[in-house]
Amino acid sequence: MSIEAVVPFKPVNPKSRLSSVLSKVERELFAEAMLSDVVLSLKGAGCSPYILSTVPLHCTHAEVKVSSGELNPVLNSLIAGSSGPLLIIMADLPLVTPDVVRRIISTPSDMALGPGRGGGTNAIFIRDRIRFHVDYYGASFLKHRGIAEQAGLTCEIVDSFRLHTDIDEKEDLVELLIHGHGRAVDFLKRCGFSLSIEKGRVGISRLTEE
Amino acid sequence: MSIEAVVPFKPVNPKSRLSSVLSKVERELFAEAMLSDVVLSLKGAGCSPYILSTVPLHCTHAEVKVSSGELNPVLNSLIAGSSGPLLIIMADLPLVTPDVVRRIISTPSDMALGPGRGGGTNAIFIRDRIRFHVDYYGASFLKHRGIAEQAGLTCEIVDSFRLHTDIDEKEDLVELLIHGHGRAVDFLKRCGFSLSIEKGRVGISRLTEE
Repeated sequence: MSIEAVVPFKPVNPKSRLSSVLSKVERELFAEAMLSDVVLSLKGAGCSPYILSTVPLHCTHAEVKVSSGELNPVLNSLIAGSSGPLLIIMADLPLVTPDVVRRIISTPSDMALGPGRGGGTNAIFIRDRIRFHVDYYGASFLKHRGIAEQAGLTCEIVDSFRLHTDIDEKEDLVELLIHGHGRAVDFLKRCGFSLSIEKGRVGISRLTEE
Repeated sequence: MSIEAVVPFKPVNPKSRLSSVLSKVERELFAEAMLSDVVLSLKGAGCSPYILSTVPLHCTHAEVKVSSGELNPVLNSLIAGSSGPLLIIMADLPLVTPDVVRRIISTPSDMALGPGRGGGTNAIFIRDRIRFHVDYYGASFLKHRGIAEQAGLTCEIVDSFRLHTDIDEKEDLVELLIHGHGRAVDFLKRCGFSLSIEKGRVGISRLTEE
């Protein structure tokens, strides 16, 4: 049975912490490229993905459902609304491969959590929807681990840097340029970005058109 | 057969990028606590670790060899000097568990690389010493992957955030406070550090004695 996978997505003014290196239009296109990478990895792992977008959106790879509500109540009503296993995965994870998705959904535990850098939660896989609810924002990884514990659910913490690395800041683009191989890294390269090394530290630089 | 594991270590003025939150003595003790965590994880995975230190050092958990030379030539003469599989792993990886070490040394490939955040290399496992040499600093992960390719060695890139997360900066302490469970996180907590949440972002704060 193909596992339902939902990817929350906010198309409007996305990735504001990248404003110093990407214009608003570039950030929108970059966010869509990252979303495509995630959706294609979900399909590559045999999941049935759909996008939960805050505004209408065209996507050739997956169905789009529109909901303008707050993330937590929207996801919790979605969890409560049907049965079967569910994967919730963030849209800014272009390093995730089908192999990573397979590691998540093949957990021997009742559920799996993919921590994100800085205390967030990049993926939640649940088999038993009745006993779990989401609580994003802040140190959500600790909250989600606590919810699992209180519900008596065994929970695997998926140890993957590809899943851990959400792309939020300029420094994260280094990871994408080194480890990426999809639409998001192609977009960055088309924009003129490459790795640069200054005083032994790896950073990024951008060729500007003359 | 127990696998030889070498942990390079610089005890003098370590972790200078943590100077804003830890004094020099605290950074020294913190670096030693992280080293202990790594050494104990190596032993937990059945490796035979020793520390390659730039100055004499007392460690109850592993033998210490002193060499004041530059890292690359010292490690390359060590690689060339004997035979058998070798694991080189950095000392600032307190999130690494015995499970992570087992994942590295049980690779089905000729060798394994553990990338570090920002282009570095946190672990190198080689079976065939003759065909490999190290080249640390800068974007060393890409250099090491290239050296493996040129030597015709198959190489697994170990996908682990515990191995990817070297502790260099204040933001990295968040990861340690969330995911750590050894001497390094105990030391941080004894120093009064805890997680704090401001404007939805997770950071660290420190209780100061009155």
